[in-house]
Amino acid sequence: MKNKNIAIIGAGLVGSLLAIYLRKRGYQVTLYERRPDMRKVNIPAGRSINLALSDRGWKALRGVGIEEAIRKIGIPMTHRTMHSMDGKITTQPYGKDGQGIYAVSRGILNCTLLDLAEQNGVKIFFDERCTEVVLAKNEMHFENQQTFEKSTAHADFIFGADGAFAATRLQMQLSTAQFNYSQSYLEHGYKELMFTANADGTHRIEKNALHIWPRGGYMLIALPNLDGTFTVTLFFPMKGNPSFESLHSKAEVKKFFSDVFPDAVPLLHDLEEDFFNNPTGSLVTVKCMPWHVGNQLALIGDAAHAIVPFYGQGMNCGFEDCTILNDLLNEHHDDWEKVIPEYERLRKPAADAIGELAVDNFIEMRDLVGQPEFLLRKKIEGWFYEKHPDKWMPLYSMVTFSHIPYNEAQARGNRQNVIMDKIMAMPDIEKKWNSSEVENAILNLLKVNS
Amino acid sequence: MKNKNIAIIGAGLVGSLLAIYLRKRGYQVTLYERRPDMRKVNIPAGRSINLALSDRGWKALRGVGIEEAIRKIGIPMTHRTMHSMDGKITTQPYGKDGQGIYAVSRGILNCTLLDLAEQNGVKIFFDERCTEVVLAKNEMHFENQQTFEKSTAHADFIFGADGAFAATRLQMQLSTAQFNYSQSYLEHGYKELMFTANADGTHRIEKNALHIWPRGGYMLIALPNLDGTFTVTLFFPMKGNPSFESLHSKAEVKKFFSDVFPDAVPLLHDLEEDFFNNPTGSLVTVKCMPWHVGNQLALIGDAAHAIVPFYGQGMNCGFEDCTILNDLLNEHHDDWEKVIPEYERLRKPAADAIGELAVDNFIEMRDLVGQPEFLLRKKIEGWFYEKHPDKWMPLYSMVTFSHIPYNEAQARGNRQNVIMDKIMAMPDIEKKWNSSEVENAILNLLKVNS
Repeated sequence: MKNKNIAIIGAGLVGSLLAIYLRKRGYQVTLYERRPDMRKVNIPAGRSINLALSDRGWKALRGVGIEEAIRKIGIPMTHRTMHSMDGKITTQPYGKDGQGIYAVSRGILNCTLLDLAEQNGVKIFFDERCTEVVLAKNEMHFENQQTFEKSTAHADFIFGADGAFAATRLQMQLSTAQFNYSQSYLEHGYKELMFTANADGTHRIEKNALHIWPRGGYMLIALPNLDGTFTVTLFFPMKGNPSFESLHSKAEVKKFFSDVFPDAVPLLHDLEEDFFNNPTGSLVTVKCMPWHVGNQLALIGDAAHAIVPFYGQGMNCGFEDCTILNDLLNEHHDDWEKVIPEYERLRKPAADAIGELAVDNFIEMRDLVGQPEFLLRKKIEGWFYEKHPDKWMPLYSMVTFSHIPYNEAQARGNRQNVIMDKIMAMPDIEKKWNSSEVENAILNLLKVNS
Repeated sequence: MKNKNIAIIGAGLVGSLLAIYLRKRGYQVTLYERRPDMRKVNIPAGRSINLALSDRGWKALRGVGIEEAIRKIGIPMTHRTMHSMDGKITTQPYGKDGQGIYAVSRGILNCTLLDLAEQNGVKIFFDERCTEVVLAKNEMHFENQQTFEKSTAHADFIFGADGAFAATRLQMQLSTAQFNYSQSYLEHGYKELMFTANADGTHRIEKNALHIWPRGGYMLIALPNLDGTFTVTLFFPMKGNPSFESLHSKAEVKKFFSDVFPDAVPLLHDLEEDFFNNPTGSLVTVKCMPWHVGNQLALIGDAAHAIVPFYGQGMNCGFEDCTILNDLLNEHHDDWEKVIPEYERLRKPAADAIGELAVDNFIEMRDLVGQPEFLLRKKIEGWFYEKHPDKWMPLYSMVTFSHIPYNEAQARGNRQNVIMDKIMAMPDIEKKWNSSEVENAILNLLKVNS
């Protein structure tokens, strides 16, 4: 049985992309979005205005024919650039042969997807907040956020693409038996700031890098924008000292930044003003199960699996949900009764894995990338990967530059970690890291562990 | 500052007991209960009509002077009695010197607490469902479940004692920043059944025991009631084979019970009728953090920490919340700004621990208690505990017959487990289990591990 009439709640990145995929398959698709049409209003400052697109995301965009258009507005970042307290700079390539991740404007990407959805015949209603889903009747209730008028709509199938605090998922929590759910916050929050551009619109620091100021318990990062600015994010404890709670005045903020991020201070747009004007964001991981209710409703993207941003995979994972769902619809000839349980079966462990990897990577970014042993470890992995691409792939590459399911990447990464712990314990490893002795040691350990 | 006017949402066991404690301290206390006054209506069948009271619970009842009254209506259970498939019976004492847990009627206990609350001047409103808590205004909204009239109330401090699916906790989830929350279901559910009494009102099987039919992946248990009946509970997978899903007809239920619980079948009140008439219950563990919002609202009992029933500690833990809160009010002279954060700091790790122990104990009850090695292990622990009560206490005794914080009991239990694994690996342990060789081995392992 085909679901002819499909409703998607949430016209963010994943909801809009899903709408295009389903419309192209011939379904009647209606998108409902709580916020106004972002193509007609300004986006408020301070909320993740750029994103890192990588291979899983590109594949999903390729599937609807907009990969090249988006790549033109993306800025490739081929490496991490680390800024130490004393101004010293080190770098670490993300992949091999100049592989990179792309800084892309969330706004432009979302508007492009909305345009494409409409061009393909998707109906979109903005300012419609979903207040309830009555599953027994396949019925959605909305409240218009401009007129406060209430309305009701029906669909053969409903997707919840309404993000980390999804109304659809709350509905499942309240009305579905045996619904497993967790929302887990990091003790850190974030604050968006900005580096200004040069007068001629060029970037004041290296453009093709993701900049990190790792400071152990916290960090500053910067991603390039097309206009020469950088979006800068401080990831910082909510409580304790130092923390968002402990910095009370503009003078304290200025002093703190001058002490720990001295080379960043001259680049920042009005630091003290932005620090207190921009909101402090939270960092939440959401897991739930099941992801669907019968042949009526399914969750997708952040609604099913919100993750923290430290692997740059939140959007990429949501986009991969769409690719895999589309593949399954092909494979099962649009038999939704088969497709939806299979989508859940494949994607739930993948989403759990990237959720965990993203939390792990925070420690890597804010702490390890500042340590020489860590950089050596990554250098050895990169060198061995070049020599034996059939035997080894660094975890970061599996996640970012491959389509290996996240859960398989995680498992393989754990096995590789055990081997690298032993390699790093070899005497004088820093001198002989690219010797045949080390190469053979890794090869032997791979045999033992396989 | 004293909170003069205190509202408690939920007049179940914990809410009613808390009301008495606070009223006795001189506060104005109002209890709001969603259900009708249970003293005036019949309780529907099939929902845990008896409970196992142990030392933590008794202490809390002693504090309000009703320990003896309740003990009179309790039935001591001094041991587990295991029924194997071929009708063989084994037993395992719960503690030493006839220590026991008490089967008590939930209904009688709750009614007694409600009576005592009213006698002490607690105001109680029944049929009032809490629909919202507006924390900014210390305001509660209610909807009467008989008249559907809406009303509003205020209090200086609000307790959420409204159980595993607490409306107060949902309010925190929806409106409190950084609220960590998880609800996690077992893949098993439960069904209540009944053993009939003899014609003269006596029990048809041994009265002073908790009966278990352990069958590996599932189990049946029976707790004695005063009228000679037993409350019988089947803990059983929700899906798979066998499961609640796989037993479709009365004939299938009858055949299944006859095959795996043959000695229980003649004792059961109308099995087939009850099996399909009584609801299938779920088994959920709820964890959250924080447990309080400022000096305005706190969660207590299942609302803060719903656990599965396999350690018989759900009510005991909630009652201990009351004792500890009362102790803290004594210690800090009713300074709520100090007491509430301290209550959370002490009780959160304790509740997490008993939540985990309760899940672990399901495996012990449904599987291990049927195995000779397990019974030997418990026998060795009991024997060594008798000889060296200063050096060893079995985990079950720490949880059930002591006031050691649950988290300390769990940690000490883990250390003892490591030792017992080694003892059980000694050659011929089944022959020499009470020898001085084994005694000295345990003493030495305790030294090494301390």
